[in-house]
Amino acid sequence: MKALVLFSGGLDSSTCLALACDKYGADEVLALSVYYGQKHDKEIKASKKIAAHYGVEYMTLDLARIFEDSDCTLLKGADGDIPKESYAEQLTQSEGKPVSTYVPFRNGLFLASAASIALSRGCEVIYYGAHSDDAAGNAYPDCSEDFNKAMNDAVFIGSGEQLRIEAPFVRLTKADVVKKGIELKVPFELTWSCYEGGDKPCGVCGTCRDRIAAFKANGLTDPLMEGE
Amino acid sequence: MKALVLFSGGLDSSTCLALACDKYGADEVLALSVYYGQKHDKEIKASKKIAAHYGVEYMTLDLARIFEDSDCTLLKGADGDIPKESYAEQLTQSEGKPVSTYVPFRNGLFLASAASIALSRGCEVIYYGAHSDDAAGNAYPDCSEDFNKAMNDAVFIGSGEQLRIEAPFVRLTKADVVKKGIELKVPFELTWSCYEGGDKPCGVCGTCRDRIAAFKANGLTDPLMEGE
Repeated sequence: MKALVLFSGGLDSSTCLALACDKYGADEVLALSVYYGQKHDKEIKASKKIAAHYGVEYMTLDLARIFEDSDCTLLKGADGDIPKESYAEQLTQSEGKPVSTYVPFRNGLFLASAASIALSRGCEVIYYGAHSDDAAGNAYPDCSEDFNKAMNDAVFIGSGEQLRIEAPFVRLTKADVVKKGIELKVPFELTWSCYEGGDKPCGVCGTCRDRIAAFKANGLTDPLMEGE
Repeated sequence: MKALVLFSGGLDSSTCLALACDKYGADEVLALSVYYGQKHDKEIKASKKIAAHYGVEYMTLDLARIFEDSDCTLLKGADGDIPKESYAEQLTQSEGKPVSTYVPFRNGLFLASAASIALSRGCEVIYYGAHSDDAAGNAYPDCSEDFNKAMNDAVFIGSGEQLRIEAPFVRLTKADVVKKGIELKVPFELTWSCYEGGDKPCGVCGTCRDRIAAFKANGLTDPLMEGE
């Protein structure tokens, strides 16, 4: 196995998976999906279908216990509702602190788990799909370029220089990621990004808003929103 | 809660726990012990007793699934035996690569898990007991000062500057840690360091050898080896 892709079943990580398969071949790619206590399992279901589409080995990991005391609004145990405002509006309310859908150090934990598994399987690289829109205004500090650099250093040094992190979209916008995905023929109709677990995306949570705008910037309609 | 201590029940992390209790008071300290698939559970049993000694809140986490494909000799699923040579001898055999008891990116994973839990509980600091002897010769690259710096950056940035790592022994030897522990009256007789799960420490695995030498450097006998 050459590459491990941290894989949520969303738009960004599906494009990451496509990139890794393009470079290493599907036989050398392991897709890892992590359940962390979300209010629904739509992402896990989506990730399973997309992994099958690409024919890669697929693994799930349940880390929900780690977040059982978190008050992040994405999680089952939380009191608050998932916000319906854009990230820009949410950041005004949070006064520069991470937004209420920030899962504490989630990406750090996912990358560290991925590193332990990747080393056990002999992989040389971890792909992950962080992009600059999520890091903007410190909404998700664990998506920033600085975080990624520090985490890559930690993985490279801590593994005895056997493993590195590739974050191909860390300087790109979500619109750029959609563009890349279209080139690579990513099956966007199979992906799931919405924070809610409805039959259709809610269209108003932060990630729905960003996703719709990213397709629009490419002159397209999000395939999940067609007919809405 | 102010401080989370990554706590194995060994000599180093027990001294870390003593330091954290000294600084913050036992009521503000959470001790986290992680099971990761070791061949025995002596460390977990020891950690429970020491946490009770200090009267701190105690939490265990089972991450064994993450290491199920690892061939690390400490783990249940591995074929190889735990080496009986010193780390210096092991490093000659491994040709500068991590030793066979290196658990892939273990400390990175533990620190990341600790970060997610610490943020959920409102802690401002994670204590962990890495020291320079373990990092020497790259035996355990995830104990080095460079690794610690990168991981601290990742945690600080990725948490939106809410959390940091304190590794008070990262430039100290194990003998220095024993000295510090004696000052703080750490109940060393309750700790467990040996990689084997016998009634008494084996005395010949890497960590036993280091521990015995660290007590000897302080003019003492390891309390677990008395009468041997």
